[in-house]
Amino acid sequence: MSKGLPETRTDAAMSELVPEPRPKPAVPMKPVSINSNLLGYIGIDTIIEQMRKKTMKTGFDFNIMVVGQSGLGKSTLVNTLFKSQVSRKASSWNREEKIPKTVEIKAIGHVIEEGGVKMKLTVIDTPGFGDQINNENCWEPIEKYINEQYEKFLKEEVNIARKKRIPDTRVHCCLYFISPTGHSVALEWWQWLSRGGQGSSDALTSLGPSLRPLDLEFMKHLSKVVNIIPVIAKADTMTLEEKSEFKQRVRKELEVNGIEFYPQKEFDEDLEDKTENDKIRQESMPFAVVGSDKEYQVNGKRVLGRKTPWGIIEVENLNHCEFALLRDFVIRTHLQDLKEVTHNIHYETYRAKRLNDNGGLPPVSVDTEESHDSNP
Amino acid sequence: MSKGLPETRTDAAMSELVPEPRPKPAVPMKPVSINSNLLGYIGIDTIIEQMRKKTMKTGFDFNIMVVGQSGLGKSTLVNTLFKSQVSRKASSWNREEKIPKTVEIKAIGHVIEEGGVKMKLTVIDTPGFGDQINNENCWEPIEKYINEQYEKFLKEEVNIARKKRIPDTRVHCCLYFISPTGHSVALEWWQWLSRGGQGSSDALTSLGPSLRPLDLEFMKHLSKVVNIIPVIAKADTMTLEEKSEFKQRVRKELEVNGIEFYPQKEFDEDLEDKTENDKIRQESMPFAVVGSDKEYQVNGKRVLGRKTPWGIIEVENLNHCEFALLRDFVIRTHLQDLKEVTHNIHYETYRAKRLNDNGGLPPVSVDTEESHDSNP
Repeated sequence: MSKGLPETRTDAAMSELVPEPRPKPAVPMKPVSINSNLLGYIGIDTIIEQMRKKTMKTGFDFNIMVVGQSGLGKSTLVNTLFKSQVSRKASSWNREEKIPKTVEIKAIGHVIEEGGVKMKLTVIDTPGFGDQINNENCWEPIEKYINEQYEKFLKEEVNIARKKRIPDTRVHCCLYFISPTGHSVALEWWQWLSRGGQGSSDALTSLGPSLRPLDLEFMKHLSKVVNIIPVIAKADTMTLEEKSEFKQRVRKELEVNGIEFYPQKEFDEDLEDKTENDKIRQESMPFAVVGSDKEYQVNGKRVLGRKTPWGIIEVENLNHCEFALLRDFVIRTHLQDLKEVTHNIHYETYRAKRLNDNGGLPPVSVDTEESHDSNP
Repeated sequence: MSKGLPETRTDAAMSELVPEPRPKPAVPMKPVSINSNLLGYIGIDTIIEQMRKKTMKTGFDFNIMVVGQSGLGKSTLVNTLFKSQVSRKASSWNREEKIPKTVEIKAIGHVIEEGGVKMKLTVIDTPGFGDQINNENCWEPIEKYINEQYEKFLKEEVNIARKKRIPDTRVHCCLYFISPTGHSVALEWWQWLSRGGQGSSDALTSLGPSLRPLDLEFMKHLSKVVNIIPVIAKADTMTLEEKSEFKQRVRKELEVNGIEFYPQKEFDEDLEDKTENDKIRQESMPFAVVGSDKEYQVNGKRVLGRKTPWGIIEVENLNHCEFALLRDFVIRTHLQDLKEVTHNIHYETYRAKRLNDNGGLPPVSVDTEESHDSNP
């Protein structure tokens, strides 16, 4: 059972090695870095494996919200993202029947397990958003819901007897669906002229489809409270050139309006983050996606896609759309970061404001409405 | 770039597969488990890799305290544990000069990196403990130090503007060193008889070395506030039989006195934990160890050991002592758990008491003494 030290260091033939005097450790305030290979393997890196085991046992929460006008394929996209029926979908196209009179908030919970890791996924849908004749302030119920989840978490956190793991209902990610037909700037231009050229003409600098005022309004208000990822829905209606132009225009408009989406520049932690995220911010965003939960056979393989007379659109084929990029981004590279930015930035901002408003004290016995919490 | 679905499922030859109607998701309150293989790989388990990357970037804190009479090799053992000079050691054996008049608390910080993972290690030494003529209440400064760290953490936690990562100075693990010569029960028996047989004779049930009253007193008071791991120091003074008997006696005495050491039974989270920890509680504890930072050549390999005229004691050889068991336990299997039990149990207990004493409100502007924080 004798455990030897690394062979590479065995160059002396003596049977007894008097250890060299080592420098005394420095004063505690300035930790000294140690060459851990000094006397062999310790096992510090096993912490990763220990954390993995803990995560496998407990699982984790992930709450994703979808916002956008009806008909943009929000439910289908989320189902495609998690490759399962996690979001309810209107069963027919009778829209009058389906669209609620006001914005509703509907949360559906699922447990998805993969590779032994359990994700407690909640999909929060917002039917009715942008579907009214007057859509003024229709982002308000959404902001209210998001803040209610922060409030719930805060209350659990300041409790004297706390739960070991505070249930996390906070929205970690908000997919905002932009219409591929956007909003005709030419039409706006016409309306603007017909009003006698009064009011702002900021949004009229380019022609072609662009963001609607509601899009800008929503993102302006919500980007400070939640991680927003804008996506261009139903991107199969655009040619490559149209898509590229549209994406550029959206990025430009968001920039001009000072709207920061996720991943926010200011939260990059190091150069590696910055390099990776700059690429996403400057090239990928907003992801132009196509969703589908229908399977087709292409070259002997089953793929998720949409069949048209002119060919099958494969949703996971990067030559066809950017769904795979979005999936990799939200699930495979930034999922943990979405959770951490929610906790460290958005929740902290809410908490600080709440405590400040309360004279530094935590909130007590102010009951939040639970009505938006679940499906009625 | 077309990404196919798992080959094993491709059994139909149709070029178009109409998806089967799937059951509607259930109501949100009861999440539905989903067979994630339904439409291919999602990537949920990549969260582990994402967490690994984050940990590699940030590193982690680990704070270990050593308590026990001088001369038991506390510093040497910690140096052996981390294979580096992380703990200061008296340079000579002039004990009179070295032993402080009261218990002192000395913290030394180091950064040890292994496999790309950075551990910010703090070793907290307690010179003077048990070295006085009257050792009454000499556990008090130690308890005070431990609580001060909880207080510091609590203050950071209730701050309005919080740090993204609260610096963690809380003691995650306390190695308590039991003398291998213990305390002669025969002598106590004699003293007890000479007192006319008055007072408790609880500890006199067995003969041979055993825990001293101070050992019991310390563990009784501190086991509720910190994770205590008892170790039998300088175990090379014992034969296999003596060691086995001593260990059994110590376990018995702790049990009789209702002292729970780490890992505490009540915090086992599942059967796997229980099985693993029962073995440690019933067989390994207290680890009978030998420490050394001297290297010797044994069978062509360099080992850490102690040379005697009758042979070399190899500290990592399980036939010689239980150092490797202790190292595996503290570093390779339970390090994350030591941190979590400190946070979820000991810190929570402190916090709840503090808030209750304060009428449910967090503590404000009560400055803790910082004097014990570092080396003077």
